[in-house]
Order: sequence, then C-alpha cells, then structure tokens
Amino acid sequence: MQDLYEIVIKGTSISCGVDINDNVKIKVDHLFCISRQGIIIDIIDPIGVDQQRYQEVLKEYREKGKCKELSGDQVILPGFIDLHIHAPQFAQLGTALDIPLYDWLNKYTFPLESKFSDENFARQVYQDLVSQLISNGTTTALYFATIHKSTSCLLAEICEKKGQRALVGKVVMDDVNQNPEYYRDSSTDQAINDTEEFIQKLLAIGSKSHQGIYPVITPRFIPSCTDEALSRLGQLAKKYNLYIQSHCSESDWEHQFVLDRFKISDTQALDSFGLLSNKSIMAHCGHLSDGDMDLFHKRGAAVSHCPLSNSFFGNAVTPIRKLIEKQVNIGLGTDISGGYSSSIYDNIKQSVISSRMLEDGTNKDLLPNVRGVPNSRITLSQAFYLATAGGGESLSLPIGRLEINYAFDCQIIDTTLNYLSQSSYFGKEESNYENLFQRIMYLSKPNNISEVWIQGKLVFNKK
Amino acid sequence: MQDLYEIVIKGTSISCGVDINDNVKIKVDHLFCISRQGIIIDIIDPIGVDQQRYQEVLKEYREKGKCKELSGDQVILPGFIDLHIHAPQFAQLGTALDIPLYDWLNKYTFPLESKFSDENFARQVYQDLVSQLISNGTTTALYFATIHKSTSCLLAEICEKKGQRALVGKVVMDDVNQNPEYYRDSSTDQAINDTEEFIQKLLAIGSKSHQGIYPVITPRFIPSCTDEALSRLGQLAKKYNLYIQSHCSESDWEHQFVLDRFKISDTQALDSFGLLSNKSIMAHCGHLSDGDMDLFHKRGAAVSHCPLSNSFFGNAVTPIRKLIEKQVNIGLGTDISGGYSSSIYDNIKQSVISSRMLEDGTNKDLLPNVRGVPNSRITLSQAFYLATAGGGESLSLPIGRLEINYAFDCQIIDTTLNYLSQSSYFGKEESNYENLFQRIMYLSKPNNISEVWIQGKLVFNKK
Ligand SMILES: [Zn+2]
Ligand SMILES: [Zn+2]
Repeated sequence: MQDLYEIVIKGTSISCGVDINDNVKIKVDHLFCISRQGIIIDIIDPIGVDQQRYQEVLKEYREKGKCKELSGDQVILPGFIDLHIHAPQFAQLGTALDIPLYDWLNKYTFPLESKFSDENFARQVYQDLVSQLISNGTTTALYFATIHKSTSCLLAEICEKKGQRALVGKVVMDDVNQNPEYYRDSSTDQAINDTEEFIQKLLAIGSKSHQGIYPVITPRFIPSCTDEALSRLGQLAKKYNLYIQSHCSESDWEHQFVLDRFKISDTQALDSFGLLSNKSIMAHCGHLSDGDMDLFHKRGAAVSHCPLSNSFFGNAVTPIRKLIEKQVNIGLGTDISGGYSSSIYDNIKQSVISSRMLEDGTNKDLLPNVRGVPNSRITLSQAFYLATAGGGESLSLPIGRLEINYAFDCQIIDTTLNYLSQSSYFGKEESNYENLFQRIMYLSKPNNISEVWIQGKLVFNKK
Repeated sequence: MQDLYEIVIKGTSISCGVDINDNVKIKVDHLFCISRQGIIIDIIDPIGVDQQRYQEVLKEYREKGKCKELSGDQVILPGFIDLHIHAPQFAQLGTALDIPLYDWLNKYTFPLESKFSDENFARQVYQDLVSQLISNGTTTALYFATIHKSTSCLLAEICEKKGQRALVGKVVMDDVNQNPEYYRDSSTDQAINDTEEFIQKLLAIGSKSHQGIYPVITPRFIPSCTDEALSRLGQLAKKYNLYIQSHCSESDWEHQFVLDRFKISDTQALDSFGLLSNKSIMAHCGHLSDGDMDLFHKRGAAVSHCPLSNSFFGNAVTPIRKLIEKQVNIGLGTDISGGYSSSIYDNIKQSVISSRMLEDGTNKDLLPNVRGVPNSRITLSQAFYLATAGGGESLSLPIGRLEINYAFDCQIIDTTLNYLSQSSYFGKEESNYENLFQRIMYLSKPNNISEVWIQGKLVFNKK
C-alpha cells in the first residue's frame, strides 16, 4: 500500500494571515504532511484535538524514514514569488543606475538583450540567475526573457530542470520607430508567429513539469508595440487562456506617451487590446488614477510592485496602501536590472521604506501636513503578504501560504547565523516569534537560507 | 637593520577620488607598503617611473616572507566609517520599527538601554556587535553607549581588543521631566562627574591602543538634557579638546521641541552651549535651515547621515547634495537600531535611493515639476565617498582613503562569490573596474568580505 504522505516535515512556520491586514501566523512545531504531488495535504498541531494523531503520524513516518525534523533554531517560511524580472538583465545587475530610463534602455539594456540570440551566452546567464534566485528563496518567478523565441524557451527549460516554478514570456517589440534595428521583432507577423510557437513549446514543457512552467503573453510595453501587435497578442491570450504581463504607467514618460498616443490611460489602453484580464500582471503601476485602479480591480488584474526599481526609474512611489484598499491583487517584483537586487527580501524592506516616504514626504521645506500623503505606510507583515500570498493570488495559483491544499514551496531559515535569534540576550521566554519574524525580514542574509523546497522537492541545500 | 615596511600588500584597490565629485580611483596591482604603525607609507605603481623599484621591493619582501599578494579576483576597498551607532540597541535590531519615535523610545529603547547596568549582558551584546561590524567592513565607529559609565568603558575595551578604531560616548540624559526614572542620570552633577571619569579612563585606554580609542562628549539630544548639563558638557569638551556627538534636527518633533524651548534652532542651541565645534558630529540633521548649514560649515562640524533610520523616523530626506554644496563635512551612520542594518553598504545604497526620492518626490498626484526638489540626487560614488573619506574628514583622522600617510584600514573583497565579477559573461577585456565598483556596492553580501585590516593589522579573516 502506498504511503499517504510522501514526506512529513516537523517544524515551526511563519506564514501570513488570512487577510493582508492580519498579523503573521505562527505554527509551532507542527507536522506538514506533503503529498507525492508536492501539495500540503495535512497540517497537524501538537497541541489540542490532534494531539494523539500527531504522535501516531510522527512515529509512523519516523519509522519509515520519511520524517524531516527541524531544529529549534530553524523556521519555515513560504517561498517568495517574484512577479517581475527581466532574466537577461541579470548580466548587468547593479550597473548604470545613475542614468535616465531612455539612455539606460538604449545604451545598456537593448544591446545586452540583443546578445541573447547566442544560446551559449544565454545559457550561462540564465543558469546563474535561476540558481541565485532559488538560493535567495524565490520559488516562483514571472520572467521577461528577450525577443528570441529559442533562448526564451531555453530559460523555461532551465527553470524546469532546476525545479523552479516559472512563468516565461518571449518579449514582443515590433514598432520600427520605437525600437533599434538591431533589437526588435523583424515584423508584426513574425512577432505573433514566434509568440504562438513559443506558447506551444512552453505548454508542452509545462505539461510534463512537476512544479509548473507557463507561457506568458509579453508585449514589452505599449510604447514598443504597434496597435496590430497589441491587438493580436490580446487575441492569442484569449485563444489559449494565457497569462499576460507588461509594464503599466511606470514613469511620467511612459504614462504620458500612452496618453498622447491613445488619449486614454495606459490601463485603459491595455484593456482595450484585451490585455487586462484576471491573468494579467502589470509591473509598476506607479501613476494609476483612481479610475485605473478600479479597472484593475474589476478585471481582476494584478500589480507587481517593484520598489527598488521605482526609486530609480518610477518618478513617484506606487501607492500600495491605496491599491490594497481598492482590493487590487498585488505582489512584489525585483525588476532586475532596473532594481539592483535579485532578492525579494530587499524589495520587502524597500516597499516598507518607500511607503513611509510617501506618507511622510521627502521635502523638509514643506510643512508636515502637506509634505506627504497620509495613510500611505504599509507594515512589514503587509509587505511579507505581498511577497507570498499576494503573489499567489495575483497568479491565481495555490502558492504563497503554508496551508492545506497549497504547494509546499518553502525556505528554511537558520536563525543562528547573523544573530537573528535574540534568545541568547533575552532567553527563550522573552524572545517571541513576532520579533523573530521582523528580524528574519530585516536582518537575514542569503546564507541564513539553508534549504529551499518547491512543490515538495528539495531544490537547494546550502551545505 | 629594521625593515622599512612591516608588510607589503600587492593588489588592486578602489578608493574615492580627491574630491567628492570625482570618480572612484583605481590602482591596479600596486604595492601598498605599510609601516609598523599601520600607516601606508608608500604606494608603488607597476607601470611608469616606479617600474624598477616595484620589482625590487616585490622581490625583497617576497624573500622576507612579508609580501601578501592578492589574486586577480580580489579587490581592496577602504574600511567603512560608521559615524552614528547606538551600541546597546544592537540587541533589538530590526524590531519595533512600525511605531512612532516617542513610543519606540519609551516602550522599547529606554527599557533595553537600562539593562546595560548589567556587565554580563553588556559584554555579550557589545562583543557580538563589534564582531559583526568588523566582519561587515566597518573599521571605525562612533558609538553612543548608555548612561552607565562602567559598561560604556567596557565597550571601548572590547573595541580595543578586537582591533576596531572606536570613539565612544557615555550618554548624558539628566532632565527629570524628559527621561524615565529608571533610565536617567541621577543628577546633573552625577552626569558630569561620571562623564569626566569616563573621559579619563578612555584617554588612558586610548594612549595604549594601536588603532586609536577616543572618548566623546555625548548629550543624547537637547530634549533629554538640562541647560546646565549641556553647558557643562560644552566646557568639558573644551577643557579636554574632545569629540562631541548628539542628534540634531532629526524629526519634525525634535526640531520643533528645541525651537519651542530656546526660540532658536537645534543647531544654534548646540552652538550656544559650545557643542558645535570642528570635532562635533551630529546625527541626521534632516531639518536644517540654510543658516544652520552655514553654521555647520563655519564651525567645521560634521553631519552623520543615516538614511535607513531617517526613512522610519526622520519625516523627510536629509538634503545631502545641498550639504555637499555648502561644503559641510558628511559621513554615513547606521543609527542602529533606528536603522535596521549594521552594514554601511546598506546605508550607501539607501543614501542614493533616498536622494532620488527627494529629487523626484513621491506623490504621483503632484505635477512632476513640483513633486520633488531638483538637483538632489547623489551618485553611487558620492555615497561611497561619504562612507570612507567623508567619514575620515568628519573625524579629522587620516582614515578612509588608500593613500600615503593614511592608516591602512581596508576590506578585501572576493569578487567570485555572488556573481560580482562580470568577466565570465563579457571577458576580462570588457568588464571594467567602474562596473565592478558598482556591483560591489550594490550586490555584495557580508560573505564577499574575506579579510578586514585596521591600522595595518588583520582583524578579521573569513576562512
Ligand atoms: Zn521591467
Ligand atoms: Zn541616534
């Protein structure tokens, strides 16, 4: 007879609450029971009504050699979800951030992306990137690749092999007036045909993958695409019921460009092309109007908030608290390499900081009561929600929570390194998990992550 | 005959330029010749007029076994200078940042600091802190301890032993109306007497130390001190020619408190008590007027900029670019635990980000031309200058540069970890040191620091 569980993990977890405004939820020393499909199918509390079953399951799976018992210095967190990342730009991470968006694209980014016609170059960069993301605790990523069908597919294959859940888009940029000759789709037809071929290949890869690999309709942003391409991409999305990603109202420049071209907002324009659906995830959205936010909510479309990148290229802080109040789905993105960090931890921290700077304002010469935008701050646990459950909701996938019927995607944190645990100062009594949660968010470094699991499989082991 | 040099280091360095507006300065494969006192007394270029001497010195010190040769994957950076840090608050790092300053002080910080009457508790926290700072590349730190004379002295002793250059202050807070009974100086006389005793002890420790240990006059901030204490502290500073530190115009609340009490600004009030000298380093200074800035310049007083802390408690962004233009000395501080990070790297990054958010503004609903403060951004190399040479200038010490007659304080960076080097993507030819510098600043993690040297001595070795 087959075992009920593939593996049982005994340990303490920190996960977000049911609602984004709830505090984090701690499960001390529970049993997380994982199916062969990598789903959490049972969680057993050592205290209360489950007490006896806890002992039975523990004994049974210990005897089978299928019980992994964490130490008191380890904590299980859900894996992070990166909702916006340009995979090729990993090769220039951290450079050229002192220049304007236009120069950044044309002098650095497009020349770099054009090199991804070379399969060997692409393989090297993509392998390094995916390895680093996984070791940083990112268990799901929504990628922009490049315009190249073949190496975009390679990126998906690399994710599949390394065990990361991935959603990948071949980028479309076909407008001859807006894109350099050396880096654009050769025609609108070519862009659409390549996209459709790419979709079919990814659907094939996805159907065989354990953790899930998905194709994504990916117009770079409205300024780089013709009306025809945008409209045919909307049709493709509908035909195959696909995820859609793009940039929306990222900066003053982009927001205004679309307004000038269509006399409607970026959000409305995306919607008019069938690109704003409940499977759409739009990066940045820093300049949405109230009406735009309502349209996001109505369509069930999601915002990927990239606070590090926005500090350099956004010209304003995305009003996350307001988007939360408008019940828009929101997750976090690194936006490599507009953001310099491949870590969602860094974006959690910056999302809190940026929200404080929106609330307080920045210019001391204005009076406090007009300097900022009241009620804009988000808490650390709200930011953590965005990085986990919020990302899962944005993708409509059962990920981002350590709860029954969710995929077992997690990072195991070693609290002995970098002084995360305060128990040596205050004793076990006075240290509490709420403080430990905050210290993991603010103080942990990549070497605090000792293991990463995706869909019930161990995909990274530090030692 | 005694050797001319105690040790010769062969390697490539990145240090800041002569002026804060210069680009970083690269010395490829130079010989850094260190005296027994830990001073760089010669730097020899492998190319040009020094070519022959280079070969001779290299041969001689290789034979003596006194030449340390770095690999091509290592880079020497100057050690960082932390100009504002509350040592006791290390025990609560990263917690309770979601609450207002007043509650943060009274519910968390003062109760914690009061525990430093306990020598064992203090020793444990201070040892952990100093070890972590050194391993993060911080070779000099300007500390607030607590009101306790004895454990403040212990902090200095720990720094002395671990080899870190330290400037330490016993905190004065004597106003019975502004401080809780359980945590304040028992009287003004006591505060001043304890301070003077502390000074004499530290002068004794300092006179025997290799790297330098200095006492610092430390009124917590004007709101916590009586006029008498402030004025007698000013006299003590003069009597012993001491460093002075405090907080100045940190937040709307503090700025206004001093205005209400004295009808003059915080800067003017500090000056009136003799607390604004060319050995003064004042934390934050986010709300200085133009006149205040001019007074800082006139007195030669320095600003310690703590951008991470300011995002939580500052209510505005300190206008660093303007302070640079006013030729005020500026360095960086972590402000543990108002700032959650013990790393100056994190504050370098945030200082760039905060300056962008001051320049661009944060509120999208304002027009771009009124949203921010034009010409406020600082570059990454300016931020690096603040963390190194700027800190040295603020303290009037020969530190923060890898130049002749400066102390040999450095961190050796391993560029093979965390993908700092781009040479595997672009080859050695196309990778350049300007990019490498940016990637070290933005991407490096503590484990990229393989060694730390202070005053010519190896004080940290990762392996
Ligand atoms: Zn992007
Ligand atoms: Zn402070």
